[in-house]
Amino acid sequence: MKSIGVFTSGGDAPGMNACIRSVVRTGLSLGLDVYGIKYGYNGMIDGDIYKMKSYSVSNIVQRGGTILKSARSKEFMTKEGRAKAYEQLTKRGIEGLVAIGGDGTFTGANIFHEEFGIPIVGAPGTIDNDLYGSDYTIGFDTAVNTALDAIDKIRDTANSHDRVFFIEVMGRHSGYIAIQSGIGGGAELVVVPETSITMEDVINTLKEGRDKQKTSSIVVVAEGGDQGDAHQIASHVIKELPDLDIRVSTLGHIQRGGSPTSYDRILSSRLGMAAVEGLINGEKNVMVGVINDKITYTSFKLAISKAKPINQELMRLVEILSI
Amino acid sequence: MKSIGVFTSGGDAPGMNACIRSVVRTGLSLGLDVYGIKYGYNGMIDGDIYKMKSYSVSNIVQRGGTILKSARSKEFMTKEGRAKAYEQLTKRGIEGLVAIGGDGTFTGANIFHEEFGIPIVGAPGTIDNDLYGSDYTIGFDTAVNTALDAIDKIRDTANSHDRVFFIEVMGRHSGYIAIQSGIGGGAELVVVPETSITMEDVINTLKEGRDKQKTSSIVVVAEGGDQGDAHQIASHVIKELPDLDIRVSTLGHIQRGGSPTSYDRILSSRLGMAAVEGLINGEKNVMVGVINDKITYTSFKLAISKAKPINQELMRLVEILSI
Amino acid sequence: MKSIGVFTSGGDAPGMNACIRSVVRTGLSLGLDVYGIKYGYNGMIDGDIYKMKSYSVSNIVQRGGTILKSARSKEFMTKEGRAKAYEQLTKRGIEGLVAIGGDGTFTGANIFHEEFGIPIVGAPGTIDNDLYGSDYTIGFDTAVNTALDAIDKIRDTANSHDRVFFIEVMGRHSGYIAIQSGIGGGAELVVVPETSITMEDVINTLKEGRDKQKTSSIVVVAEGGDQGDAHQIASHVIKELPDLDIRVSTLGHIQRGGSPTSYDRILSSRLGMAAVEGLINGEKNVMVGVINDKITYTSFKLAISKAKPINQELMRLVEILSI
Amino acid sequence: MKSIGVFTSGGDAPGMNACIRSVVRTGLSLGLDVYGIKYGYNGMIDGDIYKMKSYSVSNIVQRGGTILKSARSKEFMTKEGRAKAYEQLTKRGIEGLVAIGGDGTFTGANIFHEEFGIPIVGAPGTIDNDLYGSDYTIGFDTAVNTALDAIDKIRDTANSHDRVFFIEVMGRHSGYIAIQSGIGGGAELVVVPETSITMEDVINTLKEGRDKQKTSSIVVVAEGGDQGDAHQIASHVIKELPDLDIRVSTLGHIQRGGSPTSYDRILSSRLGMAAVEGLINGEKNVMVGVINDKITYTSFKLAISKAKPINQELMRLVEILSI
Repeated sequence: MKSIGVFTSGGDAPGMNACIRSVVRTGLSLGLDVYGIKYGYNGMIDGDIYKMKSYSVSNIVQRGGTILKSARSKEFMTKEGRAKAYEQLTKRGIEGLVAIGGDGTFTGANIFHEEFGIPIVGAPGTIDNDLYGSDYTIGFDTAVNTALDAIDKIRDTANSHDRVFFIEVMGRHSGYIAIQSGIGGGAELVVVPETSITMEDVINTLKEGRDKQKTSSIVVVAEGGDQGDAHQIASHVIKELPDLDIRVSTLGHIQRGGSPTSYDRILSSRLGMAAVEGLINGEKNVMVGVINDKITYTSFKLAISKAKPINQELMRLVEILSI
Repeated sequence: MKSIGVFTSGGDAPGMNACIRSVVRTGLSLGLDVYGIKYGYNGMIDGDIYKMKSYSVSNIVQRGGTILKSARSKEFMTKEGRAKAYEQLTKRGIEGLVAIGGDGTFTGANIFHEEFGIPIVGAPGTIDNDLYGSDYTIGFDTAVNTALDAIDKIRDTANSHDRVFFIEVMGRHSGYIAIQSGIGGGAELVVVPETSITMEDVINTLKEGRDKQKTSSIVVVAEGGDQGDAHQIASHVIKELPDLDIRVSTLGHIQRGGSPTSYDRILSSRLGMAAVEGLINGEKNVMVGVINDKITYTSFKLAISKAKPINQELMRLVEILSI
Repeated sequence: MKSIGVFTSGGDAPGMNACIRSVVRTGLSLGLDVYGIKYGYNGMIDGDIYKMKSYSVSNIVQRGGTILKSARSKEFMTKEGRAKAYEQLTKRGIEGLVAIGGDGTFTGANIFHEEFGIPIVGAPGTIDNDLYGSDYTIGFDTAVNTALDAIDKIRDTANSHDRVFFIEVMGRHSGYIAIQSGIGGGAELVVVPETSITMEDVINTLKEGRDKQKTSSIVVVAEGGDQGDAHQIASHVIKELPDLDIRVSTLGHIQRGGSPTSYDRILSSRLGMAAVEGLINGEKNVMVGVINDKITYTSFKLAISKAKPINQELMRLVEILSI
Repeated sequence: MKSIGVFTSGGDAPGMNACIRSVVRTGLSLGLDVYGIKYGYNGMIDGDIYKMKSYSVSNIVQRGGTILKSARSKEFMTKEGRAKAYEQLTKRGIEGLVAIGGDGTFTGANIFHEEFGIPIVGAPGTIDNDLYGSDYTIGFDTAVNTALDAIDKIRDTANSHDRVFFIEVMGRHSGYIAIQSGIGGGAELVVVPETSITMEDVINTLKEGRDKQKTSSIVVVAEGGDQGDAHQIASHVIKELPDLDIRVSTLGHIQRGGSPTSYDRILSSRLGMAAVEGLINGEKNVMVGVINDKITYTSFKLAISKAKPINQELMRLVEILSI
């Protein structure tokens, strides 16, 4: 292999730039040419591709977002689109790809590989931490710390006014951000898709708190839960517990941005290096991950389809710490 | 005067603790007894009042929220409520008050003073910066920096995906937070109550940007504008410019919390000292402020009723910088 | 066991408060009495001990430092001192201890246990991450992120002026902070006790960088290396490469403070819970840790004496990423 | 005037990029060509000059450092050097300059103007806030907040261990950073060049604190004081008060970097706009500043030579708040 390409796709995540940097410099140090493909699969189809040098990735390790830009591509979902993309790659002699993204990205990569045989190694870039095959994904630690910082700020207000706050964090199919920011933020309760917590449980916990003279409470809600979003849960609770002073805050897009934490920069750098080394060593249709501090490769299929369970010890922690 | 009380009321603002600390230590250094009154006017009525020492305010200068807690009081709006409050004060020999809060707080203080003659000096504590008689209010600088930090994060995502973001910041009657965070955040447009910006202007600006190949844009919206909130404005724009990838983010309560900035800690400390010195020197129905770096006292009536105009130079800056 | 005590000892670390909170609430939830012992072994000797309630640890999960204070105790190094300490504990019916600290703390705990038989479980609280028996220690992740934030700031200046900066971080016997903040901070070189890097290597790396027109460089130095501190290394380099514009910055005590990161809050909470559960389950002379995301107990002796090697993959990363 | 140049010179300061951005976009909006001159006067001499577009300054408002780089120039101190520089400007038709920097920068600008008649407007870019003619300078607010953040972190440790910390902040001839970060950081004492505080005062204050059972103290020291640096002062104090547990921390270069605060971004933007508008309106040998929220122009000579006094009210605040 003499030439590889790297791109980011799907929702951006802090650490993607650190990963790009690592892919580029690892590739160069191994004597490869490294091409940057902009706007994900769209740029691959359109030939928005340029040769990267070591200085192309100077001074980006600390930046949120992605210098290669990201996009979702409808055209790549068609066979014609993928054929065009493949042509753009072969034209430049690109023989392998590093795809930084989430399950959508890897679904596309899987099909692309099956159709055209080009080796692809994925690096898990998503704040949701919902991919099997890596303990953590690029951007998750930063997103949790951003959420935590917001919760700390909101608690200042909650305490000052004796209020109950429902705080909605990201995580469409996964409660990882909610659980971790809930423990770190001293939440009384965490509502996540992974548990069978009911509206009654929420109401009972808050009622108990009130009866114990707890003056303020934080409930962290993952966006994708069965009980609805934070506004919906709050409006139920207001009906049952009208004496509580209840507020809702949805943290939203701030969770996707910002300078990556140390953890995310190192994870991203490790994954970038291991993705390139994997390509060189013959890996071809896999996602690279870190499990128990060791580099591992998991097939795209497994990475996308298999559920990653939440550590039950953390669920127990929430309960104990909120007494 | 031998004994004074201090309380916080209305929405909390970062710096209130620094102000309380300054009131307490200035009072003690002048030989006064200083009482802390909890939960604003409610605590005054209920006698939730305690004598404060120098160490009562140790290690709080950097904390958001208010250690004296805050509340809105319906009972204080009645003559009976105010009579009870006055009795609680006289019982303890409290002869003067420092009220830290916003227009609601000062409206109450004004009536209280008129009815019972007790000298009150207010310190402007509100993130909205909507009080006449002080260039800036306690918490404003922190709120702007918090909003700015959020905008910086969101721009990472906006840039990575070539999106247009409508970001709603606080400020019900005042566009101060929007203007300042908009300039600092490099916004293409700022929608505030103080200007006559129309939906057409918003659409035209974004259309021009699109035509100039601007790939991403930030529009900062103050919550209290005539054009509706950020969601409403965005949904209008989506209809007119369906090719833009538009997102909305409402920053919400995070703007009220957090450790105060240097500016807010110093402003709060100055106002606290000047409030106590004002009381000692015979000020009685006024809000203390800092105008052009000098301490000033403005009657509550004027502080509440008179509009504080936005520096027109700043409006011009937004326009020039977004080309 | 009906009654336990908890204390912090040695250098403070962000997350100690989160750990105390977890110990207290886990203890209470199991029906135990929990006593807080102030100022480490000194307070144990002096009887500076109080019963803690759930609210004693409200609103501290996000605070740096330790509400129980910390100290080094000479008296506890004597048999008489330890006898006094034991008496203070038995007087109150305290039957087990959770000791939050580093190797000095656990050395004392080990002797104390051997002499008096009181069960003690230690929780690893040190920013240096130099204890065997836990992948990470309380405060390490926060310290790295603080160092990283400082490096990011210094790089702004290094870039603007084309300078070489030697940045000294904490870590007397361990290069963990240096390695991680070096990778995250995009350092050209990391000088740590664990490697046999020589002055010549440092000079050669910088010379190569200069010859490749690298305009600015960051060298991260762990305080405890064989090559001397950052100032000493820098002064050697200046002699050999007088055309470089070299500066030195020692980050110092800021690395010990600040609000703990998400990682540290969760780790601290898990360790606190597991320490109490360990005591209840008969653990007695051990440090609790998290290895590969699982709770483990390691004898104090091993925890103190055995070296924890640095992941060699990380050393390789530094080299590759700095090309 | 059809064409202007902009450069940064001397020590970098957060906000310089925001100022460059404002100069460029104001210039373009007025129909001017705007040239960026790299590395200050050195780049002017060497012709390291390029035409800037609106997008040249995209996404930099939030970045520390300066994209135009900075340097000190020995050659510009010679007449020959300045002649070369002038030639480079005239060759490109550059008819006016915006110089962003401190007193060294303006001293050079003053001579340059006198010799060659080219109109120059300076924008005060220095974290020290030591220029007459502007209430605040670019980078000062950010530097104070960075120092404050560090002091907050150090106080966590000081409190946990009952220590006295001497913290040295920047400010060679000016105590502005020390005073403001001292007030905001709750310091017991601030040692600045502007006051006649003696070693005895320092010792007495700490002795009093100790006698009042103050368990920890912060002393903020400006680097340029008559009493020596923080290490020197501390070593005197240790001799006199050997029972205190004293530590020293020098904050150093972190104070120069980092993302600018809201205040600095707005100040920088205003000054950049006013600098260009000043040039257009015939200003020629002046520094632009903001005094009492209004744009003003002060001759370089006055700006450099006249002392800016520290608000005495702030000195009084330190004393009162530390009781």
